[in-house]
Amino acid sequence: MSVPSAPAVCLLSGGMDSAVTLAEAKAAGFAPYALSFRYGQRHAHELEAASRVAHALGAVEHRVAALDFDKLADSALTGSEEVPKDRDEADIGAGVPPTYVPARNTVFLAVALGWAESLGATDLFLGVNAIDYSGYPDCRPEFLRAFEDLAAVATAAGVEGSRFRIHAPLVEMTKREIVLRAEELGVDLGLTHTCYDPREEDGRVLACGRCDACALRLKGFREAERADPIPYATSAEPSR
Amino acid sequence: MSVPSAPAVCLLSGGMDSAVTLAEAKAAGFAPYALSFRYGQRHAHELEAASRVAHALGAVEHRVAALDFDKLADSALTGSEEVPKDRDEADIGAGVPPTYVPARNTVFLAVALGWAESLGATDLFLGVNAIDYSGYPDCRPEFLRAFEDLAAVATAAGVEGSRFRIHAPLVEMTKREIVLRAEELGVDLGLTHTCYDPREEDGRVLACGRCDACALRLKGFREAERADPIPYATSAEPSR
Repeated sequence: MSVPSAPAVCLLSGGMDSAVTLAEAKAAGFAPYALSFRYGQRHAHELEAASRVAHALGAVEHRVAALDFDKLADSALTGSEEVPKDRDEADIGAGVPPTYVPARNTVFLAVALGWAESLGATDLFLGVNAIDYSGYPDCRPEFLRAFEDLAAVATAAGVEGSRFRIHAPLVEMTKREIVLRAEELGVDLGLTHTCYDPREEDGRVLACGRCDACALRLKGFREAERADPIPYATSAEPSR
Repeated sequence: MSVPSAPAVCLLSGGMDSAVTLAEAKAAGFAPYALSFRYGQRHAHELEAASRVAHALGAVEHRVAALDFDKLADSALTGSEEVPKDRDEADIGAGVPPTYVPARNTVFLAVALGWAESLGATDLFLGVNAIDYSGYPDCRPEFLRAFEDLAAVATAAGVEGSRFRIHAPLVEMTKREIVLRAEELGVDLGLTHTCYDPREEDGRVLACGRCDACALRLKGFREAERADPIPYATSAEPSR
């Protein structure tokens, strides 16, 4: 007889980090419930990638919650500012970049917490990364601990004694380590989408190769000595 | 010369407590930005009430954020369970009732935090009440303090040294005191909507008078020795 897996809510953006995080949740023995958001992001390709990843990795369920965040918060990711390009690697992670969406992970985790409580789950997985990260305050371990403390007093389950845990298995990993961990866990990174500013050509989605997200991803593959399976716009290739 | 008022984001449900809270924000010298949510609640009349209140009390702006919460969290307020009726007053507030929406105030405050950060505001107003409350964990002072601690580490503004404050001016007030405070501040409670299970008759919205929310509201008016200006369904009247 097998013990039924405990449910866990996994935030799934469609990017590389959240895909590996979902695979980590499964490897740790949880039954993953994947949650994505439609929040006015320019890169709607993310949601298609999230759906591919949830299916490929065997999520129990994949839900997409809509939130019209773009009406409230100004950010390059929701269309009101330019996505920065060709930044020096040293500048990525120094200060908060214009792609920061105010309180985004707080909102995402809050909604995930509501779903978790409805499911009877006390485990949440989030693919944040504080090493090769992009300078977002809500990707740091102190944010995750503060959210756990909040969940303990914010929910009926918490008041009744359950302790919610925010798992961020990649938080201390470099992008290089994430690429290699994907390989170990059998995650096909060709299904993921990372670029903040993609374009379509002949029905294919091409990553720009120049935004902060592409730069960090490409650095990870380069340092892991692996080829990135996704297609990039030609103009980005010469520099790689 | 007058000093420009600091902006504050005020959560506005359309009920009595959030209306008085918005008036308190104004009385404290803030420029109120009102935020309501469309989240699949059965009582959409709340949003009409919120709009009337925002206008009457002179909010700088009133935004309604849509979130399809009903797809994620089970609750009597979003249609999947029965609204309890005719409960004993002693039972209201004893335990978490079926109208609890998992993590609702966490989600609302998270979105408010995002808007506040975009506006350059560090003050948020929330009409929660821990005295004559309905047993919701996310209406208690310890929840509000935990959210302030989270905001400090979750946002760029927090990391740069701003301290977000969650104001809940009604948190220690009885419903009686709230009714009297509304009078002092000139808030027309006839504009507000409280009932979890209203019905329409001849184009008028009638409160049921029997759900927990109506019961607490009517108790407040009774104890304040004031007449509630909103109409109730006839069947509810004899018992009052």
